[in-house]
Amino acid sequence: MDTLSETLVLKRVKSPADLRSMSLNELRELAADVRRALLDKVSAHGGHVGPNLGMVEATIALHYVFNTPEDKLIFDVSHQSYPHKILTGRARAFTDPDHYDDVTGYTNPSESPYDLFSLGHTSSAVALATGVAKARDLRGGQENVVAVIGDGSLSGGVAFEGLDYGATLGSNFIVVVNDNDMSIAENHGGIYADLRLLRHSNGTAEPNLFRSMGYAYRYVHYGNDLRSLIEMFRAVKDIDHPVVVHINTMKGLGLPVAEADKETFHWSMPFDLKTGALLDNSVDDTPGYDDIFATDMLKMMQADPTVVTMTAGTPGVLGFSPERRRQAGRQFIDVGIAEQQAVDMAAGLAKGGAKPVFGVVSSFLQRAYDQFAQDAALNRQPATFVVFYATMFGMNDETHLGFFDVALLGNIPNLQLLAPTCRNEFEAMLSWAVTRKDSTTPVVIRIPGSPAVDNPEVATLDDYSVAPYQTVRQGEKVALIGAGTFLPTMLQAADLLKEKGVNPTVINPRSLSVLDTAALDALRSYDLVITAEDGIVEGGYGQKVASYLGTSPVKVINLGLPKAFPNHYSASELARQCSLTAEQIAALAR
Amino acid sequence: MDTLSETLVLKRVKSPADLRSMSLNELRELAADVRRALLDKVSAHGGHVGPNLGMVEATIALHYVFNTPEDKLIFDVSHQSYPHKILTGRARAFTDPDHYDDVTGYTNPSESPYDLFSLGHTSSAVALATGVAKARDLRGGQENVVAVIGDGSLSGGVAFEGLDYGATLGSNFIVVVNDNDMSIAENHGGIYADLRLLRHSNGTAEPNLFRSMGYAYRYVHYGNDLRSLIEMFRAVKDIDHPVVVHINTMKGLGLPVAEADKETFHWSMPFDLKTGALLDNSVDDTPGYDDIFATDMLKMMQADPTVVTMTAGTPGVLGFSPERRRQAGRQFIDVGIAEQQAVDMAAGLAKGGAKPVFGVVSSFLQRAYDQFAQDAALNRQPATFVVFYATMFGMNDETHLGFFDVALLGNIPNLQLLAPTCRNEFEAMLSWAVTRKDSTTPVVIRIPGSPAVDNPEVATLDDYSVAPYQTVRQGEKVALIGAGTFLPTMLQAADLLKEKGVNPTVINPRSLSVLDTAALDALRSYDLVITAEDGIVEGGYGQKVASYLGTSPVKVINLGLPKAFPNHYSASELARQCSLTAEQIAALAR
Repeated sequence: MDTLSETLVLKRVKSPADLRSMSLNELRELAADVRRALLDKVSAHGGHVGPNLGMVEATIALHYVFNTPEDKLIFDVSHQSYPHKILTGRARAFTDPDHYDDVTGYTNPSESPYDLFSLGHTSSAVALATGVAKARDLRGGQENVVAVIGDGSLSGGVAFEGLDYGATLGSNFIVVVNDNDMSIAENHGGIYADLRLLRHSNGTAEPNLFRSMGYAYRYVHYGNDLRSLIEMFRAVKDIDHPVVVHINTMKGLGLPVAEADKETFHWSMPFDLKTGALLDNSVDDTPGYDDIFATDMLKMMQADPTVVTMTAGTPGVLGFSPERRRQAGRQFIDVGIAEQQAVDMAAGLAKGGAKPVFGVVSSFLQRAYDQFAQDAALNRQPATFVVFYATMFGMNDETHLGFFDVALLGNIPNLQLLAPTCRNEFEAMLSWAVTRKDSTTPVVIRIPGSPAVDNPEVATLDDYSVAPYQTVRQGEKVALIGAGTFLPTMLQAADLLKEKGVNPTVINPRSLSVLDTAALDALRSYDLVITAEDGIVEGGYGQKVASYLGTSPVKVINLGLPKAFPNHYSASELARQCSLTAEQIAALAR
Repeated sequence: MDTLSETLVLKRVKSPADLRSMSLNELRELAADVRRALLDKVSAHGGHVGPNLGMVEATIALHYVFNTPEDKLIFDVSHQSYPHKILTGRARAFTDPDHYDDVTGYTNPSESPYDLFSLGHTSSAVALATGVAKARDLRGGQENVVAVIGDGSLSGGVAFEGLDYGATLGSNFIVVVNDNDMSIAENHGGIYADLRLLRHSNGTAEPNLFRSMGYAYRYVHYGNDLRSLIEMFRAVKDIDHPVVVHINTMKGLGLPVAEADKETFHWSMPFDLKTGALLDNSVDDTPGYDDIFATDMLKMMQADPTVVTMTAGTPGVLGFSPERRRQAGRQFIDVGIAEQQAVDMAAGLAKGGAKPVFGVVSSFLQRAYDQFAQDAALNRQPATFVVFYATMFGMNDETHLGFFDVALLGNIPNLQLLAPTCRNEFEAMLSWAVTRKDSTTPVVIRIPGSPAVDNPEVATLDDYSVAPYQTVRQGEKVALIGAGTFLPTMLQAADLLKEKGVNPTVINPRSLSVLDTAALDALRSYDLVITAEDGIVEGGYGQKVASYLGTSPVKVINLGLPKAFPNHYSASELARQCSLTAEQIAALAR
């Protein structure tokens, strides 16, 4: 059932062509309709709230002025792309609850020809747009190429690389900087003082970051005013050189609770539109790993002023609410969306004798591979990294998958990659990593995807620098090696097997980067070894075991995820497809 | 034998403390001595010429003014660190031919307490320095933290991330920008117009990139004048906020041929000081893979105006001399040292219908992992990437190792990683990759470490989108799978085995990212499979084979490199340690 009333202007917009014939008053009604559709859906369904509310007018103005899809619009990270989806034939996914899940939260070429890329990591739109513009020039095309990037995304290095190169294109290249003075949380970085100066001077201040990079520069102070936006976009349309259009927008506009608390309403679960209260009050009180991490870090920071907790723009993921950030004071560092900076700063902090812990989302840490390898590992700096959402049971957007980090970090020399299996083990590993002395090894701890509960069968250590495997249950003939999330699954499989008269050995490998060769040698006379890990099989932990045991008669089966980018998958279904349930593993072993 | 005359001022400098008591005239003599030592060594031994010649005076002034090693000097990438090494107790490695190899070409903490990091990738110094400065602040220290970065390195995203965050430190933080108006080749990017404006206005121009990022800004026009430098460094010493000191230096100063041809003399093999001619005239005339690549690309670019060749600041590595760049015209793109930009621009070019080929050094491509994964592979863009120095037989600095890319790229979904084994196969793969139609897969071709010769035994294909394994020789019981560089080795091993009555099957896998399961299934009844690859074993190609065959009785041995950062190793020795010689492989098989 489509709840969209026939009287709404939005109803008339099947594609952007429909809005190009509208009057300014109709466009304003359209903006109200789009805002209402956004609010209805995100309050009922959850999603990115603030960034989209601020971009309603600019998106209408872009499609009004530019001849999309011939003219190219490239939205960075796409937290701000919902209005674009509403205007490009996908309104129903916002107005009809039965169709809420028809679209993803990001631009997606498989949904619409108006979407050029599937973008979920920030800061890449300008760099991608330089290629689209250059291809146009080589072809002799005349269309406009427009990249839209939020101020929070500007701190990512690739945004700067793209801006730097884009300035030299010498042809039509339009960068719209959507400045709502916020990242996911508050912004961090020297450029934000300049953006503020520009906003407070109606765009006239010097110095000007964008001019210093070689761009013509235009400023729109009323970035939620359709007339101002349309005039400006008309002024730069078909421009023959690179230009930045800096628009000052209001994050959360139209939802008072979101205007007042921009961080909470950057993204939200379903909530009450009036009060902002979350609709689901049944939320489990058991602390998750974010709470456990934040609580433990606060204690360690209080005990030692050289311990610091770091984030790259996602403090909430780490359990560091504004209140906890205040408690941590200068020992909490948010570098902004800048993972390379975070890893290098952690290496520098360790070199300087401090004890840094950088908490980072699995999918985002890959933006700093070179810094992990060169500056932390090769330079022997004992910094600590804690990986959140490092699991197939976490975020399931194709751009945010949390199961590539083992293949990525597990193959870096001089780096200890630990996979705790439960709460007590996580806390023991974290405590050791932060307080260890005379270490020359970066340590990465990936949080399991299972609930944060203690497992009394798991033995904790005071020192994980070597991390020998724990034989959790001693059996015979069959060994089940359960890494991280999958140790409980292996224990369940062992229970099932016992009922069938098979008594397998169950092993917790603890480390996914360094093999315990003595423990593995003891399995050479077994019939079968099964490994299961919360990551892709290729390049992962299990293949190291298969290779090491390659000359033994023992058979080895590596379970884990296929090398693929599944999108909006069901985790339980995917687990079944990968034989990762206890029942399937028990059946395999038999 | 130390050739350094006793009369030289340099002889008196055992550590920076010794130069702090010198007069300005003595320091000038010291500069002349350092320059002479540099010229003597690099002309006889090879190395980075231009960057170091330009930094002689600034390095003396830094050590004169700052109280190193208590004050911290962090040199970016360290192409400019030879004068620093000469002044910090390592002069003999520049003045005594017998000791030329005592030091590496980069700062290195294992050589000296004056070196904080081993840095061979550009652009990281500022980010690392933010951590060192923050650690000082947490400890309550008072020392100066000084990062030194060249203008060419500024285009790297992590340099920007570091500058952006560094501006917010609120304490002593000094960034010296050594601006010689050159990267390895000429600079590319919008910021360089601003740097030029600043140089031409004695630092007074607006806009000013550094001020726009929140830095106080000082400019030294005569960046090779000791008095000016000393005065400026004194002025900023112990400053309580972040400052950029922009110094205008002359790349190659003191060597006329290097002043005149800055690109050629960025780095050079041994050469005649007067003429600049290379000393070794016996250079093999056989074209290397760089020449073959450049020649093939020029042909394809002439045939199709949408084919483009891209580099990230290293055109020479790709065989693109200034003359060839002129021939390619706008179809040759140098984005500057900005690998993330290059990969994203390639993705954007492909999206726009062009045919981009980004040639990149193995060790540097890892700076763009996220762009390979998210923007090229996940977004299904058929861009082509050619990897140079992708071998243990290439660069052997610990920071430039060429054997991690298989573990890195081979585990990315929807990416075809091809390993040609010889010249004819390389050219066939390149030609296919550039001209293929309707593909949705990025293709990476890693150039082998063996000489660029044809191998008539290797069958080329018109289409490598599937790339089934080639059984180069059909035998029995033992299979030797030789990837890339190591196919010739496997063929030699097969010859040796034949003499002993063993007739092995020899396989060229062609692709290192996608298994030919039919070909592997045919080996299940074999006794032994040996894989050899020019990369680390962990996470690499062979382990995929071991895992796939894990449930078969066939034994599998994976040969390749250990997960380590060897430094200045002997390739032939390392190969022996890894059982990678034909004799060792034949012995293993027996």
